[in-house]
Amino acid sequence: MSLLIKNGTVINAEETRQADVYCENGLIKAIGHDLDVPENTEIIDAAGQYIMPGGIDPHTHMQLPFMGTVATDDFYTGTAAGLAGGTTMIIDFVIPAPGENLLDAYNKWMEWAQKAAGDYSFHVAITWWDETVSADMETLVRDHGVNSFKHFMAYKNAIMADDEILINSFSRSLELGAIPTVHAENGELVFNLQQEMMDRGITGPEGHALSRPPQVEGEAVNRALRIAEVLKVPIYVVHNSCKEALDEITRARSQGQRVFGEVLASHLLVDETVYQNEDWETAAAHVMSPPFRSSEHQDALWKGLQSGNLHTTATDHCCFCAEQKAAGKDDFRLIPNGTAGVENRMEALWTHGVNKGRLTMNEFVKVTSTNAAQIFNIYPRKGSVSKGADADIVIWDPKAKKTISAKTHHQNVDFNVLEGMEVTGIPSHTISAGKVVYANGELKAVKGAGKYVNRPPFADYFEAQRLQTESTKPVAVKRK
Amino acid sequence: MSLLIKNGTVINAEETRQADVYCENGLIKAIGHDLDVPENTEIIDAAGQYIMPGGIDPHTHMQLPFMGTVATDDFYTGTAAGLAGGTTMIIDFVIPAPGENLLDAYNKWMEWAQKAAGDYSFHVAITWWDETVSADMETLVRDHGVNSFKHFMAYKNAIMADDEILINSFSRSLELGAIPTVHAENGELVFNLQQEMMDRGITGPEGHALSRPPQVEGEAVNRALRIAEVLKVPIYVVHNSCKEALDEITRARSQGQRVFGEVLASHLLVDETVYQNEDWETAAAHVMSPPFRSSEHQDALWKGLQSGNLHTTATDHCCFCAEQKAAGKDDFRLIPNGTAGVENRMEALWTHGVNKGRLTMNEFVKVTSTNAAQIFNIYPRKGSVSKGADADIVIWDPKAKKTISAKTHHQNVDFNVLEGMEVTGIPSHTISAGKVVYANGELKAVKGAGKYVNRPPFADYFEAQRLQTESTKPVAVKRK
Amino acid sequence: MSLLIKNGTVINAEETRQADVYCENGLIKAIGHDLDVPENTEIIDAAGQYIMPGGIDPHTHMQLPFMGTVATDDFYTGTAAGLAGGTTMIIDFVIPAPGENLLDAYNKWMEWAQKAAGDYSFHVAITWWDETVSADMETLVRDHGVNSFKHFMAYKNAIMADDEILINSFSRSLELGAIPTVHAENGELVFNLQQEMMDRGITGPEGHALSRPPQVEGEAVNRALRIAEVLKVPIYVVHNSCKEALDEITRARSQGQRVFGEVLASHLLVDETVYQNEDWETAAAHVMSPPFRSSEHQDALWKGLQSGNLHTTATDHCCFCAEQKAAGKDDFRLIPNGTAGVENRMEALWTHGVNKGRLTMNEFVKVTSTNAAQIFNIYPRKGSVSKGADADIVIWDPKAKKTISAKTHHQNVDFNVLEGMEVTGIPSHTISAGKVVYANGELKAVKGAGKYVNRPPFADYFEAQRLQTESTKPVAVKRK
Amino acid sequence: MSLLIKNGTVINAEETRQADVYCENGLIKAIGHDLDVPENTEIIDAAGQYIMPGGIDPHTHMQLPFMGTVATDDFYTGTAAGLAGGTTMIIDFVIPAPGENLLDAYNKWMEWAQKAAGDYSFHVAITWWDETVSADMETLVRDHGVNSFKHFMAYKNAIMADDEILINSFSRSLELGAIPTVHAENGELVFNLQQEMMDRGITGPEGHALSRPPQVEGEAVNRALRIAEVLKVPIYVVHNSCKEALDEITRARSQGQRVFGEVLASHLLVDETVYQNEDWETAAAHVMSPPFRSSEHQDALWKGLQSGNLHTTATDHCCFCAEQKAAGKDDFRLIPNGTAGVENRMEALWTHGVNKGRLTMNEFVKVTSTNAAQIFNIYPRKGSVSKGADADIVIWDPKAKKTISAKTHHQNVDFNVLEGMEVTGIPSHTISAGKVVYANGELKAVKGAGKYVNRPPFADYFEAQRLQTESTKPVAVKRK
Repeated sequence: MSLLIKNGTVINAEETRQADVYCENGLIKAIGHDLDVPENTEIIDAAGQYIMPGGIDPHTHMQLPFMGTVATDDFYTGTAAGLAGGTTMIIDFVIPAPGENLLDAYNKWMEWAQKAAGDYSFHVAITWWDETVSADMETLVRDHGVNSFKHFMAYKNAIMADDEILINSFSRSLELGAIPTVHAENGELVFNLQQEMMDRGITGPEGHALSRPPQVEGEAVNRALRIAEVLKVPIYVVHNSCKEALDEITRARSQGQRVFGEVLASHLLVDETVYQNEDWETAAAHVMSPPFRSSEHQDALWKGLQSGNLHTTATDHCCFCAEQKAAGKDDFRLIPNGTAGVENRMEALWTHGVNKGRLTMNEFVKVTSTNAAQIFNIYPRKGSVSKGADADIVIWDPKAKKTISAKTHHQNVDFNVLEGMEVTGIPSHTISAGKVVYANGELKAVKGAGKYVNRPPFADYFEAQRLQTESTKPVAVKRK
Repeated sequence: MSLLIKNGTVINAEETRQADVYCENGLIKAIGHDLDVPENTEIIDAAGQYIMPGGIDPHTHMQLPFMGTVATDDFYTGTAAGLAGGTTMIIDFVIPAPGENLLDAYNKWMEWAQKAAGDYSFHVAITWWDETVSADMETLVRDHGVNSFKHFMAYKNAIMADDEILINSFSRSLELGAIPTVHAENGELVFNLQQEMMDRGITGPEGHALSRPPQVEGEAVNRALRIAEVLKVPIYVVHNSCKEALDEITRARSQGQRVFGEVLASHLLVDETVYQNEDWETAAAHVMSPPFRSSEHQDALWKGLQSGNLHTTATDHCCFCAEQKAAGKDDFRLIPNGTAGVENRMEALWTHGVNKGRLTMNEFVKVTSTNAAQIFNIYPRKGSVSKGADADIVIWDPKAKKTISAKTHHQNVDFNVLEGMEVTGIPSHTISAGKVVYANGELKAVKGAGKYVNRPPFADYFEAQRLQTESTKPVAVKRK
Repeated sequence: MSLLIKNGTVINAEETRQADVYCENGLIKAIGHDLDVPENTEIIDAAGQYIMPGGIDPHTHMQLPFMGTVATDDFYTGTAAGLAGGTTMIIDFVIPAPGENLLDAYNKWMEWAQKAAGDYSFHVAITWWDETVSADMETLVRDHGVNSFKHFMAYKNAIMADDEILINSFSRSLELGAIPTVHAENGELVFNLQQEMMDRGITGPEGHALSRPPQVEGEAVNRALRIAEVLKVPIYVVHNSCKEALDEITRARSQGQRVFGEVLASHLLVDETVYQNEDWETAAAHVMSPPFRSSEHQDALWKGLQSGNLHTTATDHCCFCAEQKAAGKDDFRLIPNGTAGVENRMEALWTHGVNKGRLTMNEFVKVTSTNAAQIFNIYPRKGSVSKGADADIVIWDPKAKKTISAKTHHQNVDFNVLEGMEVTGIPSHTISAGKVVYANGELKAVKGAGKYVNRPPFADYFEAQRLQTESTKPVAVKRK
Repeated sequence: MSLLIKNGTVINAEETRQADVYCENGLIKAIGHDLDVPENTEIIDAAGQYIMPGGIDPHTHMQLPFMGTVATDDFYTGTAAGLAGGTTMIIDFVIPAPGENLLDAYNKWMEWAQKAAGDYSFHVAITWWDETVSADMETLVRDHGVNSFKHFMAYKNAIMADDEILINSFSRSLELGAIPTVHAENGELVFNLQQEMMDRGITGPEGHALSRPPQVEGEAVNRALRIAEVLKVPIYVVHNSCKEALDEITRARSQGQRVFGEVLASHLLVDETVYQNEDWETAAAHVMSPPFRSSEHQDALWKGLQSGNLHTTATDHCCFCAEQKAAGKDDFRLIPNGTAGVENRMEALWTHGVNKGRLTMNEFVKVTSTNAAQIFNIYPRKGSVSKGADADIVIWDPKAKKTISAKTHHQNVDFNVLEGMEVTGIPSHTISAGKVVYANGELKAVKGAGKYVNRPPFADYFEAQRLQTESTKPVAVKRK
């Protein structure tokens, strides 16, 4: 089973160069010119196209049980849609209910994921705390390839982690060499504002946005960063949606803190006016947390990517159809939170990022793939077109165009927040584990072909953190 | 009972001018030249001196029961010491234990305060929450002249207010026209760090400072400001000790938020090296929260005063003698937190503020008196040398010098954090309610002469807040 | 000649109170209740109204010879229009041509101003440099009541001051106790961009705005502030129009620098879309420098006023009619720069400031009058309703409404950038030097009744600056 | 001529891995395990050591004629010292005198550089402007491998570029695909302060520092960035020495501007107290521009590197011996500006960067080599241990120690600003063009072995800049 990609231009995070790429047995075996390949090697002519690392979406929720229903894209349809858009790996979330055993939850999700068509891995959420949680974190890291733990600062009376949990879990993560991540919204304020909106008679989707203003996100980001700073733990903030959040990350980074920031493609491209749509279904289809923001936030987020204060792009892919959204017809608090996107992330970012000069092509690779691989310590196996790496590749046609639509996308949901967006620059082929799984519009995803990706602990920045902590250790004053 | 101050220069927040000041029956009756006064009017010649509003110290704790002991300056000795330093009014704190009825606590403090020699008022702390607390807040505002409520974000397992309490109490304060105030330190982090220091064997006073780094204060200030911003409540942050805190206030103010900041004279003038003192008693004598900081913080705080981002200066006067401090000999967590200062605030600020050109004389009056009076809505009765105002006046001799020392101060405590500081510019006379209570080194304070000052709700900035909130009110989208 | 204003509420910068105000011989003689007044005193009933210090507009250009024409409001019509809007004093500009003797220019402007109906004073521009300029600055300060000098950082090849001039003039100003002020735009960049726009065929008024983006203003503000900081001179920045400018001022102030900022009412209320108007005349009528900005800048500027980082509001009143503007029909560089506004400043600020809760009434007084008086050292003679002050007063009817229009305004120009704005809160009466000059819609301005206001040097902040400079004086290292 | 480095760990900017490295004919031919190499290949055992790209010092001045003398390290001794410290390439500066033909100057420097022992390239300074300069810039870019131009904003009356020159040269650079760089200090202010210090009798080296406070640097950085922003040109700021400079870069980058920042190893490690040294020679030996700063600036600069707001580390290597420095015995303005450092940069940064956890090893490679190669468009030929790259390699022994001293260094100067610093982590071998030029303390540099490195224009970020500029192009309003 071998594949040769010829005549293209390889784009990595660090470099652009003309070269052919030869894959065999799921790995990249050679990169260069005039490569010697076996006779019946499949050949793709990538003339005029770019050969890039397959995308990594570090934030998805396939078939998530949430708010009384289940997300409609399962691990097969969701990863397949990702492949159609050039994304060859997702990092999804295991979310134990408060009180639920972490390993039980992990096993449940692992079973669901067996049918995945592309590679996957799991962040595990810490939604409660006791000694067993602490012990299970170690097991997950040591035996199950988990190197990141997620904390929801929102969702009061459900999965919200308060400061005490954050402190315990962040400290434990540091010991284990796993990076804590946070969904940063102040859940107490959201709860209060939700009630206020209902009291004011604002029961529609606009109430969702009004009860989650940028300030509740800015507060939570700052709190999480300060806790991490004091405990001397690296930290990763998911789906930053607003200037307030970004400003905190920028501040912390400029003060030398090891902070990583993620942004969703949708937050870069969709604005808050969607909640003013007179059609309830349309407005509700955009309900997600954090919500879409006014346009100056989009502008700020792009600048965050450009400046290197934001590192990864994701989707928070979590599909709910109109029927499911209707549960909140009279009370926005009951609308299942989530939107699709795993399929469209790369083409939307190329169009609005590279084509508009906000990102170089190398930077595009960084923010769609390489940075995620490095932060979550699977580089260069993932995130790199290099000898020895997994043969997860997207071949990009910078001139090809299409119009994004729910009518034509592969995502198993009836709505697309980027509906009607024309993109220039889309995948012509996607290669997963050395096999062509998408070619010129045809999706060839194979159920169950995806593999779980072990992520080892102690990414390189942990050693720097350790040395820094060591060199600033407090000591007792000597007194007589 | 009448008094004429002649030949001096009146310094108010807004203006400097030559004028005589005539007081009668506790009030200022006339300001001008060639005033017509009764025959046996007492006359003070203030030639070459400044006539300023008596200082207001908005943050003291007289005879506070705290950490198993009681602060040694009671309402008499403490207010008397204040008069010796030109401070004619304090705002102290009623601090109910969690579960304790607010009015019971208020009455208890009011009784203690009967012996005060200068005027006083009370902030009331909200340390727990239920419907009776909400109702009692109204009674305190309506019937008892309370227009500010205090929240401790530190002191876990004691009087700490979590976000839920903050949200409830801030909202209630807004309805009542009272301003919420916060002691901003993240109590969960402090708790965690205290344990860490003890685990490391750092049991001395330096452990106190190490367990309360600037970041825990910065976090809490930001959180309190964000909550206030979202709830649209004005807010006052007490004893900002560090750049991190000030930066948050500066940010919030520059974004148009109604935020007021207080700084302690000691935080402006004392640095963290005191905790490295090899003498345990000396180090312990400096234990207060927030602790003293490294010198760049002092520099930043002065600039906060200069720029108008900080508004008031206070002392957090709370005296504990060496014997009391010794309770924490083996565990810094048991050292009673607190230092003296009500007597020295004005002279220290004059010396390091006015004499060094950091503050004009008018700005000095603002930050030692007028701003506090305006924020707490007792201006121009207090904080102003103007016709009709209370005759609370300090006559300032800008050339007189002294050396601050526990040996000579009037505070009832065996230590002074400004020990040895030479000051140039001290009161020659202090007038309280039209009577000379301090003159040329002689303290004539009268036990019980002080009066409780009612502070009415709805200071002017509440109306602006109301109009602003009104003009940005969220509305429901009209849908078919 | 005496006047009693009864039943109103006096609003000063520091205080709001019920009181009657009695004026005699041009001065305020008494404030209080039941005032004893001469028999034939004129009485105004101000029940339900506010009695405030007359407005000071610190930035106007009456009958300015500029760009080949002369501004149409002369000192009479312009000051009269100001009186109709509650503004009782202007500070205009003497602008010598490069090489022109400063005193000659000063005398020329003084002569023009003889016909003024309200009080006036002059900033003097420094547009060139040699020893005579330095000497004349002293004469102006010592003998002519000038305490501020203006510097244009824009207008290359005309009146632009380069860094060498700025440094010389700022240093000299400090010696003389006069405050330097700057029009901050980088003239080299403007020149370059103007050429670029012409080269691109953008010859209309939009080219004016495009050639003066916020960055050219931000740059110049920063440069001026840094020069002032290094030379240890207080500084005042005129007509800040954008976030970039404000951010620099905020930064400098938060670092303790003595910086004052001015903002124009029009920059707070008009946005840049005016330059996209398809009607050339309308677009051209808005041509001024700095130009109007996008709406986020207005929002920022309001916050600058709220936070105290901006201090004064002005108009840059400089009227050119359509006929004059037409000079730039084919080349925006030839459109005379300037718009009207002296009449509408206070009512527009009240409507959008006080009524929307951005400013308290006291803050309104500060930013329309008191701060200007204090910065330019004529307080409390101006900027205050207090005993002994000039009887320059506006009686404000907070309920009265009107619609601003060029058809009805008193300004001698055919256009109003606030055309159609409905305001709530307008003057019912204006009092100048104790005389009613405007009453319930009737303007009674008297040509030549205005007086020149001497402004003494060394405002109080100069002493603070001196002490600060003194206490940080560099010294030589002692070496053998 | 072949070389195999065995058993080491390859550290690149993006990745760390165990691999052998094989070099032949000046290039890296293979990286991997069990490499097939010719028989008489030289073998270095790098067990326990790191194989990294040779350092690039983007800021040196070998044998510079300056201030009436000539720097003592010529291109041979200077590059040889670099090799001893692991630096295999320098970018030096061609500095034409005002009026001097650019190509003449270029040729002069090229001739001097013939004797270099390591590779080199040249930035060319723009010190004056006319059409020939503009034309010569094109020739240099097109025919001579120059892709960066330098501008001195300091040195009034010598080589200072005013705003007009900056604007012309930046615009021209953009057209040519070359990046402008700036030495950012406000020359007018420096000139003024130098005079002031002399007037105050401060004639010693401390006067040098006092006349170049951080504010003059902050001002110039901001000005240069704003000009670049307005003209839409990428920009590189050399030797940022202070928080004020860094803050401007951080601001600009966070606003999406393409700005690169350089910092000198000495500015990271030496503080301003050196100018207080009572020994004149010692103090004078530290005279360079910008000068050394107080310690909070060092802390800020390290954070700038950590956060990615600063990109490259350099030395501004420019040697003057005590005898030369003595020219300024009575007037600090005559002390030749410059210090050594090319030999010590990498070991000092490893010790204080990597060993203290401020930088990961990969980040160390970035800031000492890779980033410079990418910015100046010679990557991956330089800055990378990769197949096909130039065989410029340093083998790093992380456990080896030494003490830096002028007595033992290879730099041709009698002073070392890092004298006495103990470093842990130094080169065991340096390979230049595939040859061992330094091994275990023995320097084997060959005079004339270094080659000129052509740097092509239009680094990848120019294309992004072009697309961005294109997508925001101003247009004329259509009017009838």
